[in-house]
Amino acid sequence: MKLSARNVIAGKVVAVTKGVTTAHVKIEIASGRLITSSITNEAVDDLDLKVGDDVSAIIKSSDVLIGKE
Amino acid sequence: MKLSARNVIAGKVVAVTKGVTTAHVKIEIASGRLITSSITNEAVDDLDLKVGDDVSAIIKSSDVLIGKE
Amino acid sequence: MKLSARNVIAGKVVAVTKGVTTAHVKIEIASGRLITSSITNEAVDDLDLKVGDDVSAIIKSSDVLIGKE
Amino acid sequence: MKLSARNVIAGKVVAVTKGVTTAHVKIEIASGRLITSSITNEAVDDLDLKVGDDVSAIIKSSDVLIGKE
Amino acid sequence: MKLSARNVIAGKVVAVTKGVTTAHVKIEIASGRLITSSITNEAVDDLDLKVGDDVSAIIKSSDVLIGKE
Amino acid sequence: MKLSARNVIAGKVVAVTKGVTTAHVKIEIASGRLITSSITNEAVDDLDLKVGDDVSAIIKSSDVLIGKE
Repeated sequence: MKLSARNVIAGKVVAVTKGVTTAHVKIEIASGRLITSSITNEAVDDLDLKVGDDVSAIIKSSDVLIGKE
Repeated sequence: MKLSARNVIAGKVVAVTKGVTTAHVKIEIASGRLITSSITNEAVDDLDLKVGDDVSAIIKSSDVLIGKE
Repeated sequence: MKLSARNVIAGKVVAVTKGVTTAHVKIEIASGRLITSSITNEAVDDLDLKVGDDVSAIIKSSDVLIGKE
Repeated sequence: MKLSARNVIAGKVVAVTKGVTTAHVKIEIASGRLITSSITNEAVDDLDLKVGDDVSAIIKSSDVLIGKE
Repeated sequence: MKLSARNVIAGKVVAVTKGVTTAHVKIEIASGRLITSSITNEAVDDLDLKVGDDVSAIIKSSDVLIGKE
Repeated sequence: MKLSARNVIAGKVVAVTKGVTTAHVKIEIASGRLITSSITNEAVDDLDLKVGDDVSAIIKSSDVLIGKE
């Protein structure tokens, strides 16, 4: 499936932390460069997400802010 | 200012395209790796965003989906 | 690719309206029931979205509000 | 109150799962078709959300991604 | 209709700027304190939004970042 | 750092509630007017957020819905 989201960034899962309903997943997209994702526990189970998995971080352009010094 | 957003990714502006109200900005975060951001024209003007600027793409963890093959 | 998003709703494109940078796409998910999506023109071109296409509307659970009378 | 959100989808609550701070609510919008919403526990209490309630799932157009095979 | 969104802030419309598909609306929530909203032109027409209207800016808690000096 | 987000609202933290992974923070932006933010526990720790802190609630324009009676 091709996605409308402009940002599909390949990486590897380095941490999965589940709460009661919500999980946080850390994805390494380059050496030492992490993206954190907050998703449902249900999604973690459904995708069987675990450390070492090859995944993509997917971000809609309208969810990207810009900061400038 | 320190931000709660877990994802603050440094990069360089490589394209700014303004519409009537909404602009699209492309940020190179690594060689050949682009992040697209959709923001208001007003923000582009306010930050004086232009090609070559050093900026950060800022993304809240709850806005990051995960895809797995 | 399997997605973490809990809401993947199949439908058919019934309208595509492009602005200068941002497009609005209407997807019929059941007879007379429409979902509107606002995406980049670039995504419309990249997916070659046009009326009649079978697509999915994808929505992260954290982007769903609830209203109750 | 009339809302700017283009997507207001009527349904019935079929599950409410509370975590420590965040709850997941499942809404049946058609036979066998569920929408999952992640909201604060506080909202669940404030709206007194429970299985069987008639509610609306409300989604802003800019939060709808499109996928195409 | 009662909303799950924790942030419903009353104000008055002070500007409406339409693009080809997307509009920007400025709402004064206190003297000199503005909130900007980016919505579809269709929503502006549907709600007949114009300067002077009493409205609410509605924001889901998961869309609020925090910054600290 | 200057932000593209159009809505940066100054206030004071009046409550911090941590769940297992996700925290809710209440910010008073005017007497009796609260904004609720849902962020990661990690962000709360990283910013050392506590009651009494001067902070800003930061909201992207595309995340603001409008309601009109």
